[in-house]
Amino acid sequence: MMQDLILGLEVVLSDGKIWNGMRAVQKDNAGYQLRRLFCGSEGTLGVITKAIIKLSPRPNQKFTALLAVNDACGLIELSKKLRSDMGEFLTAMEFFSDIGLSIALNNIPELIFPLKNRTSYYLLIEVCSGSIQVPLESMLLEIAEWSMENNLVTDGSLASSEAQRISFWRLREEQPEGQKRLGAQLKHDISVPPGRLVEFLDEAVKICNTLLPGVIINAFGHLGDGNVHYNLSPPKGRKNFSNLDNIIYSKLGELATKMSGSFAAEHGIGRAKIMMADNLRDPIERDVMRKVKKSLDHLNQLNPGVLFLDK
Amino acid sequence: MMQDLILGLEVVLSDGKIWNGMRAVQKDNAGYQLRRLFCGSEGTLGVITKAIIKLSPRPNQKFTALLAVNDACGLIELSKKLRSDMGEFLTAMEFFSDIGLSIALNNIPELIFPLKNRTSYYLLIEVCSGSIQVPLESMLLEIAEWSMENNLVTDGSLASSEAQRISFWRLREEQPEGQKRLGAQLKHDISVPPGRLVEFLDEAVKICNTLLPGVIINAFGHLGDGNVHYNLSPPKGRKNFSNLDNIIYSKLGELATKMSGSFAAEHGIGRAKIMMADNLRDPIERDVMRKVKKSLDHLNQLNPGVLFLDK
Repeated sequence: MMQDLILGLEVVLSDGKIWNGMRAVQKDNAGYQLRRLFCGSEGTLGVITKAIIKLSPRPNQKFTALLAVNDACGLIELSKKLRSDMGEFLTAMEFFSDIGLSIALNNIPELIFPLKNRTSYYLLIEVCSGSIQVPLESMLLEIAEWSMENNLVTDGSLASSEAQRISFWRLREEQPEGQKRLGAQLKHDISVPPGRLVEFLDEAVKICNTLLPGVIINAFGHLGDGNVHYNLSPPKGRKNFSNLDNIIYSKLGELATKMSGSFAAEHGIGRAKIMMADNLRDPIERDVMRKVKKSLDHLNQLNPGVLFLDK
Repeated sequence: MMQDLILGLEVVLSDGKIWNGMRAVQKDNAGYQLRRLFCGSEGTLGVITKAIIKLSPRPNQKFTALLAVNDACGLIELSKKLRSDMGEFLTAMEFFSDIGLSIALNNIPELIFPLKNRTSYYLLIEVCSGSIQVPLESMLLEIAEWSMENNLVTDGSLASSEAQRISFWRLREEQPEGQKRLGAQLKHDISVPPGRLVEFLDEAVKICNTLLPGVIINAFGHLGDGNVHYNLSPPKGRKNFSNLDNIIYSKLGELATKMSGSFAAEHGIGRAKIMMADNLRDPIERDVMRKVKKSLDHLNQLNPGVLFLDK
């Protein structure tokens, strides 16, 4: 997360004073981690006006592969193998389903699908290294072969040019735009412990199909940290979710919460998820947050109505 | 830092209520990062009673080298090369000086120095990989050769057994114990941006020698994050620092602060460094921290006298 890359901050506080926290070191433990408190506070504790960000050297080798994976269990098996054999090099493990692929291909005309076979899931893998001595390509191919021998994967392709790399990524990244063109949507930004992703996907399908049979489920996201974007479109021939929006949000949020996960993985609370936060999080947690908010903005001047109900 | 590995926490609050923040996901942005606020708060905001910690797979390859480096600039050059060529594999870059080595060797009888030549600095490097296909040993040896050809390093050794690896580490890790046996000490836990370490070391020597000529300076630490333990012993034949303790602390803390660093890199403030925090940090920062403290412990029951003066 961005907060992990932030070394220093300058923040304008609610009383107009400016906090100069522009240090440039990773290790600073002179009291509370204010830089971490302000990051992700959605403007409710202060206005960030400067930041010092930790950079990484540009890698000297990069390979991108798209694999057609038979099922969700295969995604997990493959991700475990990638972590154990190539953990240091992994910069992306993006998964998506055949439903999401169809949504993208049907709605964004210029997209190209490079494989011969369609399966239920796909994994987009990117590996990088600063060293040119690491046999990165052969390591990745070896894992792809292993996954085929173990019947996890039926087809795959290694991007052979930057243009092809970009076209692989577009299959994943254009899904939100493709789905938007379908009409109404319910979007979820959920995280679960990566090893429990299959359990989440199984349970979530049951919940959705019980509440609204035929609802179109597009689950995609970041396999490495268990962050699933679980985006729904209405059943075929329908324009909306039959007023079930809130119950679907809350049931899926509840499921993530029960699984030690989060209903707000990377996009925060804003105004839209305040009720979910109040319902799904320990009231003690919400109260601690309210106390911190009040201590730094007792007049509630900073982004009122965000994170907490404005009363 | 440990806080970067914390996924979930359970914390007993000042009113006796228990916050259940035992989530097991890296990505949770449902409001303020309380897990990060409680970590490093030194017990002043709550009592941590449970934690969920992120683990990494055990590496399948590990190499440890000790290099004799000509000067502090050489340390920086070498660390840049290691970062750029072997960044993914680096798990330790510990530096120490010949003064520190002597302190360890003279005071801890069983230590063995494995090199033929003494230089002003030494770098202990550890590299690991999850993959056995990475030519880790030859990559490390190649960098060692490069550093010799470039006159940065005059001698070096690669640990050939676990026993030898441990004996290399003891040369670094026994320095605090060795120095303790010398008598009185002034210890500093400073961080500066890693690229400015030479500047820090140069300036700090000047400050110390101006204030107390002959003071024994043992600078060692973690090159990767610019964390220097700058530990002083009295000049030869003296038992103490001639009442200059506070002025030395404050001048070195001031230097680190001017260089966008920290006077409390990894060991926190406690009771000992409150005055330094009050003097060296922006009063606005101290005030923000006091407000947060008050909001979660308005009766000042939790570790009173730590982080702030107890008044």
